[in-house]
Amino acid sequence: MADLFTVLTPREAWSKLEPHLHPMDRLEAVATAEALGRVLAEDTRAPTDLPHFPRSAMDGYAVRAEDTHGATEGLPAYLKVVGEVLMGKPAAVKLSPGEAALIHTGGMLAVGADAVVMVENTRSVDASMIEVVRPAAKGENVIQIGEDMAKGDALLPRGSILRPQDIGSLLSLGITRVSVFQKVKVALIPTGDELVPPETEPGPGQIRNTNAFALASMAAKAGAIPVVMDIVRDNYESLRATAQKALEMADVVVFSAGSSVSTRDMTSRVIESLGKPGVLVHGVSLRPGKPTILAVVGRKPVFGLPGNPASAMITFGIFVTPAIYRLSGCSQAQRFALKAKLTRNIPSATGREDYVPVKIEEKDGELHAEPVFGKSNLLFAMIRADGLARVPLDKGGMAAGESVEITLF
Amino acid sequence: MADLFTVLTPREAWSKLEPHLHPMDRLEAVATAEALGRVLAEDTRAPTDLPHFPRSAMDGYAVRAEDTHGATEGLPAYLKVVGEVLMGKPAAVKLSPGEAALIHTGGMLAVGADAVVMVENTRSVDASMIEVVRPAAKGENVIQIGEDMAKGDALLPRGSILRPQDIGSLLSLGITRVSVFQKVKVALIPTGDELVPPETEPGPGQIRNTNAFALASMAAKAGAIPVVMDIVRDNYESLRATAQKALEMADVVVFSAGSSVSTRDMTSRVIESLGKPGVLVHGVSLRPGKPTILAVVGRKPVFGLPGNPASAMITFGIFVTPAIYRLSGCSQAQRFALKAKLTRNIPSATGREDYVPVKIEEKDGELHAEPVFGKSNLLFAMIRADGLARVPLDKGGMAAGESVEITLF
Repeated sequence: MADLFTVLTPREAWSKLEPHLHPMDRLEAVATAEALGRVLAEDTRAPTDLPHFPRSAMDGYAVRAEDTHGATEGLPAYLKVVGEVLMGKPAAVKLSPGEAALIHTGGMLAVGADAVVMVENTRSVDASMIEVVRPAAKGENVIQIGEDMAKGDALLPRGSILRPQDIGSLLSLGITRVSVFQKVKVALIPTGDELVPPETEPGPGQIRNTNAFALASMAAKAGAIPVVMDIVRDNYESLRATAQKALEMADVVVFSAGSSVSTRDMTSRVIESLGKPGVLVHGVSLRPGKPTILAVVGRKPVFGLPGNPASAMITFGIFVTPAIYRLSGCSQAQRFALKAKLTRNIPSATGREDYVPVKIEEKDGELHAEPVFGKSNLLFAMIRADGLARVPLDKGGMAAGESVEITLF
Repeated sequence: MADLFTVLTPREAWSKLEPHLHPMDRLEAVATAEALGRVLAEDTRAPTDLPHFPRSAMDGYAVRAEDTHGATEGLPAYLKVVGEVLMGKPAAVKLSPGEAALIHTGGMLAVGADAVVMVENTRSVDASMIEVVRPAAKGENVIQIGEDMAKGDALLPRGSILRPQDIGSLLSLGITRVSVFQKVKVALIPTGDELVPPETEPGPGQIRNTNAFALASMAAKAGAIPVVMDIVRDNYESLRATAQKALEMADVVVFSAGSSVSTRDMTSRVIESLGKPGVLVHGVSLRPGKPTILAVVGRKPVFGLPGNPASAMITFGIFVTPAIYRLSGCSQAQRFALKAKLTRNIPSATGREDYVPVKIEEKDGELHAEPVFGKSNLLFAMIRADGLARVPLDKGGMAAGESVEITLF
């Protein structure tokens, strides 16, 4: 129960949790063509040269560069066209001095040729003769063997999130299956005596369970498999039983708890009862999101998030999403934040990091962030917003015109 | 065959295509909880007030505001605690003057109460008596009926891409199923005599078909369902037969063609033969990506993309991705571009839009874009890059230190 009720800065809180986060050791082999967004579990290297034959980068004529030396519009070089390199075939044409072969982009360089003259720099004299009006340097418009990638070159390191070009590159080298980290399973536990399932009409004092589903979507966006557990009542024994079940089946457990002090204390006691090291952080200097709990049971991170919908989403984004990336094996957990100009002052307090929903507009090639203020950070402020502006810890608010960092939703 | 071989600017090219792009009329109903990233096909409105009862925004005591008027640390108001509002229950407690009820965040306001005093602003005298040390205004710390959302209020408009908070908001109002646009089907036709499937060892002059798979991943990222067709040889009849099959099964057809002039011409002739209006644009002032074909057959957009892997991806991002968004029914096709400071000069030519792969680094809170130069924009320049920097049409290159617009991969 160390640090209980000691409020830490978001950075301090993360640094307590971070040493406990390790990439999962469950791997699987998947078809490269289907691996978009998956995280590589192995370093990859080029098994062959790419290209594995000298290729033309242009439509034109394969030539011997020396035959074109000194060629100009006025004094062109005359070359005899002795054939055409067919696409997808070994170059059947062999050039002797003074000869050229028709070649297409991607075609294999004719034997004896060492450059390609773009078709734009040639004139046809007759069916078997061209004029070259500009000299070609040796290697010009030729992609040499291994120029894109040489055999043994490092391709993509372990921890890469596979993007379309990565999939293309792996396939171009014949790597049709890759070892990736299995997807992280995230269990979401909705707790509260006031909750009913979304399909139920809530009575007086009741609300629909929606946080768990919004957070499940955030987990899915981070590449994880979310599992929404049944609603748990504010009762130590049932909360503990559900938490234990969640810990057994999932890699990450998130309590989407009620906001009252008593519920938070119960969540914290349940976590402590499940195993070591237990609760690491209880309270973060963050608005919204102060009553956040960060914990670890065994090797699994466990989070207690505030019940307010906006607070729950914001703290999920700050702590749970990066934790999912770590467990997923990602080496690059962070993306680059957008910058925008504030249209209005945002009040804040020094020593606290504030997140304010903003609407982004582009004016004169610049991005502007308009704060969407809403009482208690209600959910509907979040749907009107494009992202969250961050007011750093050391600033007592920010002034209109200042540049803020935005996390897009 | 209008405008054939007339090179248009990217904006002009898009404006020829855009009038032909309409949201698909194939809709489907899906569970809201599973609808992340889907596009709403209906305007949604709040069917009820949210909240539908007055809720406490804080842990504290439900009070009659007038009973606390003038209360100070030195001269507190004394209130009798007559009960507790249980979470999820109708408020059973009824307050008479001089009374208060214990209440938790999210609890239903006790009958007779009109404000909540935060627990921090009270002192316990004994089990049934508290001191209130600050006055509460009427409505303070209370979320009124309909304050988050009033019955009939516009929620999310048709065309919204559903984000986690949108899913939460819909569910909070009991909207558990939504009508969405069906996913757009994109057929990718790899063409070229030089292509072999990725699992085949290519012979001299041959390369693996990889563009179609990289583009399929881009289509999937844009929310579409990609279908990679079998490799088609450079032969008018087989290309036409495959194109016809693709047009029947898909909403968008993309030829990932060889780069040679003859292949491009064949693609263009095949498209013309399939139906009206046919080829709209053949050639865009873009580097890489000049030999791009934009066409429409019936209501379906058809694209002929250059064979160079980087060119194919860049032109897909500029033309095919926004077209997919339009067909998907998205109202907001564009995301906000990141800005970064160039670390080196980028040469370009006026009248041409250039895209240069860049690596992004954050230094002193600023983003810097380092161009990744690679001969012929090979695929491996793309895997080293984080995104593409755009050199606008009217600039003859850009200087180190200038701010460029970045599209992240």
